[in-house]
Amino acid sequence: MASPEPIIRSRQAEKEINGISTQVVCTGFNNYIFIVVTQYGKIGTLISVTPDSGSKEISTQAFSTKVLLGKDEVLTHVCAKNLATFVSQEASNRPVLLGLALKDSSIDAIKQMKEIIRSCQVW
Amino acid sequence: MASPEPIIRSRQAEKEINGISTQVVCTGFNNYIFIVVTQYGKIGTLISVTPDSGSKEISTQAFSTKVLLGKDEVLTHVCAKNLATFVSQEASNRPVLLGLALKDSSIDAIKQMKEIIRSCQVW
Repeated sequence: MASPEPIIRSRQAEKEINGISTQVVCTGFNNYIFIVVTQYGKIGTLISVTPDSGSKEISTQAFSTKVLLGKDEVLTHVCAKNLATFVSQEASNRPVLLGLALKDSSIDAIKQMKEIIRSCQVW
Repeated sequence: MASPEPIIRSRQAEKEINGISTQVVCTGFNNYIFIVVTQYGKIGTLISVTPDSGSKEISTQAFSTKVLLGKDEVLTHVCAKNLATFVSQEASNRPVLLGLALKDSSIDAIKQMKEIIRSCQVW
């Protein structure tokens, strides 16, 4: 008998980005998509990325980012918005809980990380 | 060729506890064990459970709990300590990041949840 599909979907992938081993884990909960992007094996800085309640139009949708655990740095908020906005939009505005432990947060690296996240779609 | 063991270990289990469907997801990061115990499919209240740095003796080890996301209630801290202390102790004092969305937080239910967590050992 095949084992049933688990209720909580989780997927992970690993890829080299500019020579750095990068792991992504995505887990879909009812009220949050949980994503970790790590180049240290650590959960890293934990950030919630939440769509603002005002506009429902994707083109004008704004997002709030909040650091829950770890260093609160401007770059972290920028990376978090960059990585998680499309997930939330595709997941009917579900907020994203994001763990980030990055050695390389260049625009090019972030772009490649988004592709890995997309390959681990659980929403 | 067999696919290699993923670097980030994740396991999940589902069980009925006193008639309520309960899911547990455990993921092992280098610096945190991430555990969600949910009876709503939600990530729920997010709590960090961290061993205090003072004593290294297991018998006298104290733990700090902090609510990072969700309602900060006394019962949440009690449940979190109850569920996560043994994990941290077994995982060489790694802190635990715990998501709790419980319908039933009776002592008996917590005891059964600990058994499910144990069955999803990633540390």
